[in-house]
Amino acid sequence: MAKGKTFIISGPSGVGKGTIVKALMQTRPNTFLSVSATTREPRKGEEDGVHYHFIDVERFRSLIEQDAFLEYAEYVGNFYGTPKKYVDEAMERGEDVILEIDVQGATQVSAKRPDAVTIFVVPPSWEVLEQRLRDRGTDSEEKLQKRLVRAKVELQAASSYSYMVINDTVEEAVREVNAIMLAEHCRPGERLSLLSE
Amino acid sequence: MAKGKTFIISGPSGVGKGTIVKALMQTRPNTFLSVSATTREPRKGEEDGVHYHFIDVERFRSLIEQDAFLEYAEYVGNFYGTPKKYVDEAMERGEDVILEIDVQGATQVSAKRPDAVTIFVVPPSWEVLEQRLRDRGTDSEEKLQKRLVRAKVELQAASSYSYMVINDTVEEAVREVNAIMLAEHCRPGERLSLLSE
Repeated sequence: MAKGKTFIISGPSGVGKGTIVKALMQTRPNTFLSVSATTREPRKGEEDGVHYHFIDVERFRSLIEQDAFLEYAEYVGNFYGTPKKYVDEAMERGEDVILEIDVQGATQVSAKRPDAVTIFVVPPSWEVLEQRLRDRGTDSEEKLQKRLVRAKVELQAASSYSYMVINDTVEEAVREVNAIMLAEHCRPGERLSLLSE
Repeated sequence: MAKGKTFIISGPSGVGKGTIVKALMQTRPNTFLSVSATTREPRKGEEDGVHYHFIDVERFRSLIEQDAFLEYAEYVGNFYGTPKKYVDEAMERGEDVILEIDVQGATQVSAKRPDAVTIFVVPPSWEVLEQRLRDRGTDSEEKLQKRLVRAKVELQAASSYSYMVINDTVEEAVREVNAIMLAEHCRPGERLSLLSE
């Protein structure tokens, strides 16, 4: 059996990564969506092991020391990280793994796992991204403008990703991610080893 | 509009490249199947411009001198080559181009067009390839064994191809080639230029 592969999905805030990943998972039975560990308090409705693995700071620091994270970072006083264990177990079972992480996280994972495939989700245009952020209605104008500037900075990182998926419609974006995943399973390394079995 | 891309499809004799390409073309409206030029005589039922561009040796040699071929070779006294002109015109129209050529031809095209995507078609197993060659019923046992040896040698070249497609069923192989073609259109180079328009 072929081992699973790891696929990293990044993209600017408001681009619709979460929606794509959710729709993608419904089309792929043998795919594992990585759940991050965090030291922040669970919010209402969040379940341990589903939305996050909720652990305390002491445990998180101990896991850092054991090199148990593929990537981690600290945001406003809380730690967030991707535990290696579940990712590796899924790949051993032959499942592909989806990591929905940011550009900094992707850089860390790529350094440890150069064979991880990187996908950056972009809006069809800046106007569409701005409109989507406005439609959310959660940000002040100032915060919204900051998000847009940050998105343009992040897009510069996108050129180091293997693939860019345009989130015009969710269906089309999911079709592209599925194509990328299938194509990456057609790489000679994996297939030559299967053929010589 | 995005320019088309060139996709090279190679594989050992008997693996079913022709069947895959024919089925593939039926699923892809904006795709151009390159027709080779040759100096050999047309066989019964072969049409000029459809099966081959039939040209004389003098013209072929003149085209070689004009660097008008992406690749060419001589087999048993006849020349075969891929004219640049039609490939470039199709790509300018935004069409993807399929080149069904052998390993030597692919090496020549890759040198001239490093952005051409290379796909090698392999049988699900050696037993299946042998059976398919036998089922054709056109080869003597000696010739069949020679083809198998040659196929194993060619497979060593496959590791330098970008992708390997397993021809288990035609439907699955076509699905894989379509996925590769879509994935290759998700490369950042092309998409970043579209986003900045």
